[in-house]
Amino acid sequence: MIKAQILSVGDEIVSGQIVDSNAAYLSQRLGELGIPVVGHAAVRDDQGEIEAALRSSAGPADVVIVTGGLGPTHDDLTREAIAAVAGVDLVLDPPSLENIRTIFAAHGIEMPPSNEKQATYPVGGEVLPNATGTAAGVRALIDGADVFVLPGVPREMMAMFEATVVPRLKATDRVIVTRSLRCFGMSESLIAERLGAVVDLHGEPRVGILASGGVITVKFTTAAATQEAALEQLDPLCAKARSAIGAVVFGEDGDTLEQVVVRQLKERGYTIALAESCTGGLIAHCLTEVAGVSEVFREGLVTYSNEAKTRLLGVRAELFESVGAVSEEVARRMAEGVRSSAGADVGVGVTGIAGPSGGSAEKPVGTVHVAVAVAGRTEHRKLSLRGVRSLVKNRAAKHALNMVRLVLAGE
Amino acid sequence: MIKAQILSVGDEIVSGQIVDSNAAYLSQRLGELGIPVVGHAAVRDDQGEIEAALRSSAGPADVVIVTGGLGPTHDDLTREAIAAVAGVDLVLDPPSLENIRTIFAAHGIEMPPSNEKQATYPVGGEVLPNATGTAAGVRALIDGADVFVLPGVPREMMAMFEATVVPRLKATDRVIVTRSLRCFGMSESLIAERLGAVVDLHGEPRVGILASGGVITVKFTTAAATQEAALEQLDPLCAKARSAIGAVVFGEDGDTLEQVVVRQLKERGYTIALAESCTGGLIAHCLTEVAGVSEVFREGLVTYSNEAKTRLLGVRAELFESVGAVSEEVARRMAEGVRSSAGADVGVGVTGIAGPSGGSAEKPVGTVHVAVAVAGRTEHRKLSLRGVRSLVKNRAAKHALNMVRLVLAGE
Repeated sequence: MIKAQILSVGDEIVSGQIVDSNAAYLSQRLGELGIPVVGHAAVRDDQGEIEAALRSSAGPADVVIVTGGLGPTHDDLTREAIAAVAGVDLVLDPPSLENIRTIFAAHGIEMPPSNEKQATYPVGGEVLPNATGTAAGVRALIDGADVFVLPGVPREMMAMFEATVVPRLKATDRVIVTRSLRCFGMSESLIAERLGAVVDLHGEPRVGILASGGVITVKFTTAAATQEAALEQLDPLCAKARSAIGAVVFGEDGDTLEQVVVRQLKERGYTIALAESCTGGLIAHCLTEVAGVSEVFREGLVTYSNEAKTRLLGVRAELFESVGAVSEEVARRMAEGVRSSAGADVGVGVTGIAGPSGGSAEKPVGTVHVAVAVAGRTEHRKLSLRGVRSLVKNRAAKHALNMVRLVLAGE
Repeated sequence: MIKAQILSVGDEIVSGQIVDSNAAYLSQRLGELGIPVVGHAAVRDDQGEIEAALRSSAGPADVVIVTGGLGPTHDDLTREAIAAVAGVDLVLDPPSLENIRTIFAAHGIEMPPSNEKQATYPVGGEVLPNATGTAAGVRALIDGADVFVLPGVPREMMAMFEATVVPRLKATDRVIVTRSLRCFGMSESLIAERLGAVVDLHGEPRVGILASGGVITVKFTTAAATQEAALEQLDPLCAKARSAIGAVVFGEDGDTLEQVVVRQLKERGYTIALAESCTGGLIAHCLTEVAGVSEVFREGLVTYSNEAKTRLLGVRAELFESVGAVSEEVARRMAEGVRSSAGADVGVGVTGIAGPSGGSAEKPVGTVHVAVAVAGRTEHRKLSLRGVRSLVKNRAAKHALNMVRLVLAGE
């Protein structure tokens, strides 16, 4: 199987001024095309460092995609480095020069002489035309690797990758296919343990386990001659994993908890209303990220003050004295209150202490009560979350969405 | 001058499933500490590849920061690779093991045996305690380079970098100091133009302009013997830039719009209440990210349905027929309605079309009306935003917060 390597050139990346999103984009696209990426590297705008990185990237790879350093200024040196490594001169490509002149003319400016170098390419290589900017790309052969150089501006890079690199990549005889399970509410290690009992974690298809934002993704990847052949391997594996991991699997591939909840509500013809205190509107924000949510979402009340909990949700004021605002009773009353006042099928109530202040020995920061009310019953759960304010909010919101999912699934 | 290299480990990075923001964070912080980063690399969860990358990263660098591969599962191999390259065994660190057991116990679960490996470190190296998660970090010497291994989860990585790596880095003889201005409501190129008229964009201190999430950050960076000497250069520059750019400068350094608004409200002893439609709770979520907001934030009503706008905010139902829910009148009425029902000093109303559906020729997707009500007057602004649903929500929320800022500043 042929393999690719990504090389990003630029001080702004290496100094951390910008995050290198180009490398992720290229890796994803190459993976989809059946060419796995085996590594990324980033170097500064220094010709010697670019040359060294070109050599070490080209060594283990069949395809190298380089981005950046094609601009017109003194610190754009990728073209020069490619020519030096290939041991050839740079020559002018007249159509590219004409393209640059046209772009400047469209802005009513004469092309500065420094832009001329953007129309050069290493002898024996090839020019990759740029339909959206001044910097032409370059293709060259280094150490047997097919090296493509694209501009660093993401918009130009993506357009050129699709228009000029994809058609030039050697056709591969296999596709790489991935299927994922998305889980919430169980530790990464326990998921791995359950999974290890039914699938070979070190074999083929490859199994990856990734934790991000409280969601654990179990990813199965394989290469096969066709999409169908790949799925024939992956689908039974996913099914086995699903039954081993259990109800904490909430979705597949790109699913989010909020998408799954909105889907469940639509399927049942239900509406939902929220009463949030410590999550501060985050649950409403998550739900309203889903297009078409207005069919099922009636309203969300962010009742930060006790007075608002009483006025809007009918929480009796004496509860704040007797059990406190952060309590099972208040969470239940919030869920039931908003369900009834909004006339919704599902009501959610969340009250807790996000921190950093407001905690006590009895109710430390991270104490959160979540209640979900449906016809005839209200489920409650107490959470003890760790971490800073934004993390407590985030995890409390995810637990609340997950509880709605489980209540709806169990109906 | 000592130099650093960043190595990121993980299939999810190399395959492009996630963008490597850790490398950018570490580069920025090391730069601020006077240690320039000379390159980044990323490799897959493969022990041989991690070992090779460790060797080539350690070669040219004095400091190597490695992130990722410290989890409890079979595909977490960084610890093993470090031990192999250093030619030593892994041994157990009892305090780290105790920390992991405590974390599981707090969730009422017994620690699975696979987590034990997260408490091991290479003989001759050092354990870096993790205050926020189960994976302890590791420090080891490879080829004369000081190698620090941190978890890949950004939150844990950042906390550990600050708490354990920074105090262990060799002191440098100069400091790199940065001052930033944060701007909202003007294009990057117009800011650059205004700035270029009063400061040298290509000289020293270095000037960077970076757009992210609608906020433009103008960053001045210089190196000097002391913090004071650096600020003597930066402060006058910041002042000049501020007056050239004008009222779109909302803060400095790490300021967010919501922090600035909460600060203004506290200074004035004011309270705020929100009525959100298309932003779906995002403004409430942003405000409640600020610790101590409960002093000033009374409530947020996410009135997604028209019925809720009438019942909770007193928007007359005939307005939906005559001018429509997305209109100046409804936004004004929402702001005034929530201000009055919550008894707050400031009321905010936002109504619009986030998309992808719901747009028309007259009111396309991205049409948003924002109103801010204070004693005696209500300001209104119509926005025409571009982009996908989440982008429209995000920009509308930022515009609303910025409008509150300007209204309060102008009082």
